[in-house]
Amino acid sequence: MKNFTFYSPTKIIFGKGTEDEVGRQTKKYGKKILLHYGGGSIKKTGLYDKVMKSLRQEGIDVIELGGVKPNPRLSLVREGIDICRKKNIDFILIVGGGSVIDSAKAIAAGAPYKGDVWDFFSDNKPEIESAIPLGVVLTIPAAGSEVSPDMVVTKEEGWFKKAGGGDPLRSKFSIMNPELTFTLSAGQTVTGVSDILAHIYERYFSQVTNTELVDRLAEATMKTVINNTRLVLKDLKDYDARAEIMWAGSIAHNDLLATGKTGDWASHMIEHELSAIYDIAHGDGLSIIFPAWMKYVYRENVERFAQFAERVWDVDPGSNGMESAALEGIARMEAYYRETGLPTRLSDLDIGGDRLEEMAEKCAGKDTLGNFKKLGRDDVLEIYKLALK
Amino acid sequence: MKNFTFYSPTKIIFGKGTEDEVGRQTKKYGKKILLHYGGGSIKKTGLYDKVMKSLRQEGIDVIELGGVKPNPRLSLVREGIDICRKKNIDFILIVGGGSVIDSAKAIAAGAPYKGDVWDFFSDNKPEIESAIPLGVVLTIPAAGSEVSPDMVVTKEEGWFKKAGGGDPLRSKFSIMNPELTFTLSAGQTVTGVSDILAHIYERYFSQVTNTELVDRLAEATMKTVINNTRLVLKDLKDYDARAEIMWAGSIAHNDLLATGKTGDWASHMIEHELSAIYDIAHGDGLSIIFPAWMKYVYRENVERFAQFAERVWDVDPGSNGMESAALEGIARMEAYYRETGLPTRLSDLDIGGDRLEEMAEKCAGKDTLGNFKKLGRDDVLEIYKLALK
Repeated sequence: MKNFTFYSPTKIIFGKGTEDEVGRQTKKYGKKILLHYGGGSIKKTGLYDKVMKSLRQEGIDVIELGGVKPNPRLSLVREGIDICRKKNIDFILIVGGGSVIDSAKAIAAGAPYKGDVWDFFSDNKPEIESAIPLGVVLTIPAAGSEVSPDMVVTKEEGWFKKAGGGDPLRSKFSIMNPELTFTLSAGQTVTGVSDILAHIYERYFSQVTNTELVDRLAEATMKTVINNTRLVLKDLKDYDARAEIMWAGSIAHNDLLATGKTGDWASHMIEHELSAIYDIAHGDGLSIIFPAWMKYVYRENVERFAQFAERVWDVDPGSNGMESAALEGIARMEAYYRETGLPTRLSDLDIGGDRLEEMAEKCAGKDTLGNFKKLGRDDVLEIYKLALK
Repeated sequence: MKNFTFYSPTKIIFGKGTEDEVGRQTKKYGKKILLHYGGGSIKKTGLYDKVMKSLRQEGIDVIELGGVKPNPRLSLVREGIDICRKKNIDFILIVGGGSVIDSAKAIAAGAPYKGDVWDFFSDNKPEIESAIPLGVVLTIPAAGSEVSPDMVVTKEEGWFKKAGGGDPLRSKFSIMNPELTFTLSAGQTVTGVSDILAHIYERYFSQVTNTELVDRLAEATMKTVINNTRLVLKDLKDYDARAEIMWAGSIAHNDLLATGKTGDWASHMIEHELSAIYDIAHGDGLSIIFPAWMKYVYRENVERFAQFAERVWDVDPGSNGMESAALEGIARMEAYYRETGLPTRLSDLDIGGDRLEEMAEKCAGKDTLGNFKKLGRDDVLEIYKLALK
């Protein structure tokens, strides 16, 4: 086990009807707030009205900025920063999923910063020293951004999708009502699940040894997500199954499952190039990239992949040796993805091979990626090729 | 799953040499601090000198109050409150285990409070609205007090051992170096382990259904503690095994494992009467009370005890039916306690049956205890009798 710091101060308010708490919670931090949301689905579901009512009851002054798209764009972030500066916004309330939260984080970091907000996504990022405080009403369990200090934003000029973050961007509270996820379609749900599982894989596949507790906690979380996704696909309004996935989505990304380990975020980076160019859902990209990444790297630590196969996918460890078990685990994961309707090849999304080299270059042209196995440009290209069809 | 709030803002700084961070961390919160510790073992091990050096380097003014005993006493708490008020202490640094942390929490709550600090342990507790901020350098993994808002203090007049707590008592940081636990004897180690396991049981044995994630996380934590205790008993300086136990001790009690559930703290209460009167270690009391409690209550939910047996103690679920599996799980837990040297009967500590009625009356004379099964005075007496020999 390695030395670590663990800090996850976000207050989680979880369960039925908890969105009615939003006014009371918000009032602790701000009187004049920016309400940030996405494409307007919250107006159709009635959530917008509930939130506004709760905020009004506490006498909170609300300025709205909707219109966040998946893979949130820098241009809207700049618009939000302008509003916050001009209107002296003291709190940002997010109603939405990871894209809206990430967009809000960039606004929160950018508003008090004297330089350009894109600096926080550059190779030599300055530290984020202060930010407008944030609160979340979560509608999509996937990104884990409701508990993380991280953000990912896409700059339209050149379609650069880049990550940044810092402790001041941790949400003060996250209100999580599983009922708010009942309206997610099967497809939206499993795309989120793919992201949740990816967050766990990225921490689980580490070369650091003697991490029994954190391994077991990760395996527990993966098993739960796998089981409960099957239940939700049978009944999209299964409260308990929705609740398991929603809470697991936060546990997957609050960094508990990374404590004492070195994670490997290569797959996330490899996927980012894909969703930046083709504007596909991040989770769909991950369910394509992960099987390919696993097939490419498993020989670096067959034992770990065999443990994954045995404890998460119920592969009999004694059958045909460790390598066979490792491969069977990856195969079962792929089969599970297909069973739930997730894509596992680029061809499933009608993406061809014509821009693989460009993506590999953008992704790993300058530096190697990852820790489980260090990946250069050519390795990344091989992974894209394995993902092709 | 039930609605819940989860809030665990303590920053964990974990690993080798992390005690050298204490000055830098403390300086964020205070310049004139109370250093609170126990019987002086930290002076023998050299930890005291290291901490003082780190504090001095940051120019922090230190006033000392040592002498905390296991089952910390109200009289020392009162002394600490006096010092804090007279010297305008702005931070309390704890170097020690659960007893020292709990003593410090009572001081932290009592100093700014206008009434008597024992109010916070009474049946009609006022809310703790403010407290002197706290930081911890942990030396004993057991109580989980380094991440919890709770405290337990013993009032010498009448030997009342009572619990209290509130969010302002959560430590700002907890520095956890597993090497600092190398000097704990086998006996001290397993007493701590008994406390850690008890914190998990108290959350695991719940009648709330559909709690798959939290159940699995609890099982993961129990398995890890059980496995790594065996390793530590073979080699008291096994860093990785010590680290697993230390981190598990915090996970067991930061309330993650209670999310969505109703816990049952009856066993803790039943034990408190024991350690208040006989001044035994809390963990030793728990390894005696828990098997008795389990035997008395398992019929309330045989399925849950069968799951515990199967997933934690590797009992074959198919062998002889659920009740048999449940009982076999309890038997294996008891055998494990005996294997590690923990007492499992009052007679192991030469405690006889003469004060059982008095304890049952103090514990449940007014109100019933627990949730898994509601326990009245007579139930508690039966549990004490089951624990006798």
